[in-house]
Amino acid sequence: MNASNPGPGVSQRGDVDPFIAMDILREAYRREAAGADICHMEVGQPAARAPRAVLEAAERALRDGPLGYTEATGLPQLRERIAEHYRKVHGVEIAPERVIVTPGSSGGFTLAFLSLFEAGDKLALASPGYPAYRNILKALNIEAAWLETREEDRWAPTANDIAELHQSAGIKGLLLASPGNPTGTVIEPDRLASICRTARERGIRLISDEIYHGLTYGAQADTALIHDADAIVVNSFSKYYCMTGWRIGWMIVPQDLVRTMERLAQNLFICPPAISQLAAVAAFDATDELEANKAVYSRNREMLVERLPQIGISRFLPVDGAFYLYADIGDFTNDSMDFANRLLAEAGIAATPGLDFDPFNGDRFLRLSFAGSNETVEKAIHKLDGFLKNQR
Amino acid sequence: MNASNPGPGVSQRGDVDPFIAMDILREAYRREAAGADICHMEVGQPAARAPRAVLEAAERALRDGPLGYTEATGLPQLRERIAEHYRKVHGVEIAPERVIVTPGSSGGFTLAFLSLFEAGDKLALASPGYPAYRNILKALNIEAAWLETREEDRWAPTANDIAELHQSAGIKGLLLASPGNPTGTVIEPDRLASICRTARERGIRLISDEIYHGLTYGAQADTALIHDADAIVVNSFSKYYCMTGWRIGWMIVPQDLVRTMERLAQNLFICPPAISQLAAVAAFDATDELEANKAVYSRNREMLVERLPQIGISRFLPVDGAFYLYADIGDFTNDSMDFANRLLAEAGIAATPGLDFDPFNGDRFLRLSFAGSNETVEKAIHKLDGFLKNQR
Repeated sequence: MNASNPGPGVSQRGDVDPFIAMDILREAYRREAAGADICHMEVGQPAARAPRAVLEAAERALRDGPLGYTEATGLPQLRERIAEHYRKVHGVEIAPERVIVTPGSSGGFTLAFLSLFEAGDKLALASPGYPAYRNILKALNIEAAWLETREEDRWAPTANDIAELHQSAGIKGLLLASPGNPTGTVIEPDRLASICRTARERGIRLISDEIYHGLTYGAQADTALIHDADAIVVNSFSKYYCMTGWRIGWMIVPQDLVRTMERLAQNLFICPPAISQLAAVAAFDATDELEANKAVYSRNREMLVERLPQIGISRFLPVDGAFYLYADIGDFTNDSMDFANRLLAEAGIAATPGLDFDPFNGDRFLRLSFAGSNETVEKAIHKLDGFLKNQR
Repeated sequence: MNASNPGPGVSQRGDVDPFIAMDILREAYRREAAGADICHMEVGQPAARAPRAVLEAAERALRDGPLGYTEATGLPQLRERIAEHYRKVHGVEIAPERVIVTPGSSGGFTLAFLSLFEAGDKLALASPGYPAYRNILKALNIEAAWLETREEDRWAPTANDIAELHQSAGIKGLLLASPGNPTGTVIEPDRLASICRTARERGIRLISDEIYHGLTYGAQADTALIHDADAIVVNSFSKYYCMTGWRIGWMIVPQDLVRTMERLAQNLFICPPAISQLAAVAAFDATDELEANKAVYSRNREMLVERLPQIGISRFLPVDGAFYLYADIGDFTNDSMDFANRLLAEAGIAATPGLDFDPFNGDRFLRLSFAGSNETVEKAIHKLDGFLKNQR
């Protein structure tokens, strides 16, 4: 998987795989700048801008300033507003100081990994899953231990998988994502409860990636905090709240980790971007606008689920939540990277090869992000149809 | 130095020291929120807001959107503008793709450390120096090897110091800062050339922290790139450009490290904040406003250098550049942390104990940041006078 020959002077730990979705994004931007018409389905990025209330709050912040350093763990008013969100939406009481505001969920993962794991420790990851997990872990000398998922389990790990991996590999932590990326799988409340119990009984630290919360299409996505008060939750304003480029997210951590997280954040980040924090406070008041955006994804999802089988892609994973459809393209290729490159060059569709998400079977999968407009998805299906007709 | 007893479940690597300046900032904000009048001299943060041109560019960015993910290494127009800056100001030709835009210089240090050093490698750091260096290194399992500096060398390392440490400790890298924090020392062009030569001859990777470039009071601060085309330069829009809370900086890296840096940035950060990038493009056109800000620091510096000896603080390090005065307070205390806490509580002056910057002699030093207004510094000197009179 990893390039085996880093350049002169490059460390082995720093020689991580690319986040291929970002490579595709760069190439798509380059083609757009040269005049091409591109359907963006490569990164998990809403076509919609941040909600009006967020933009207005940002405008006020620009006007009123000063936009200096904030507390390393975030502005008190934002931490309080996030705690209130857990009370209202999930019925969970969180002391505001347990909320750590981070520069995107990316910052949250780095803080979680560094605070909990020594070099050489093992952390369980589900496959397929978010590529940055394993790439950050490599850079930090933490070992990924794989939970390969199965169709009969709806491509998400079970409590039993975790117990077995703990016994065979001595994992110290577990990273769980629900709704999952790229799978879209929402782990059912019963299964989540059972996973949390298994992890707690065995002393496995649970990191729960909940960045696609708010984006479900009928399924119920619990926060892990309902089942394990000591879970470390990572969340973000990027997805449901449509604030990708603002680089702002949060964690909920147990009280006895707050100071550790603060010291790491002070040194690694100083603080999250001030304007993004001030703007994010308003995101929780934009529900109408955000639900309207979600209705667009829901319609996109319906279109894809109905029409992909008609154009030759009939196997894909659950799309309970998030805004990804992870499609088996094994009828067309066993080289998903080449397929994605040609799809971009020949059809103007930017999509991400499964190789990004799955070191084992990713060669025959493709992830389509349907966070764009209905028009984008409509057009992409049409272009994809034409492209696939030339692949047989 | 480091807490020896991390909480339950906290890793040793993650149990880093606080960045004490940020602790003081938090406490100062808390006191202000409760109605106290505080002179902020704890963090290196200009009182001036971002320049007008930057704020206007940010406003346009908010209006025009979309503020989504950018390329992981930054917007092409910003990378080009930074390369142009090196051509104009330093007479150095840099291909724009060698510019890596980062979430603050903080992000740059993490990228530099991870890409160059394995766990267990040794990196030379000057003492006194910026605390986040050693704290990030600890979290990444890289060892700090100390270059203790001397008054006769104006508190900056010499080529000979580096050669000796290389022989005794087998350092793989060197982190150099000029102008220095907290020392303010600008390393003279001859010494810098000689350090660069020594490092190159011994295969020591040079990371040059140039975040205080632009802030010198007579001294000449060269970029290390003049003396070593392969130096890894870390810089920031926070200091001279007055954009602290925007979390935006950059690196200049050798061509053969560009792709490594890009892959690490994709996975660790996704991208720097979009609005900050769009705003930063305009920072290079705000020279008049920024030079006016610098004139305020220059006046602050004169006031401090003249009046501190009159109120009992007569020994301090060179203040060639940056906006820090690092004062010997050994006549008053041998516990700089306690001194700083009392100074904040009793006199309303937020300042940072030397302990943050120097594990060896920091107990008897205090860092004063003079990036505030003339009025703030004037008032702080008056309050400090009263405070010191009660300390004898």
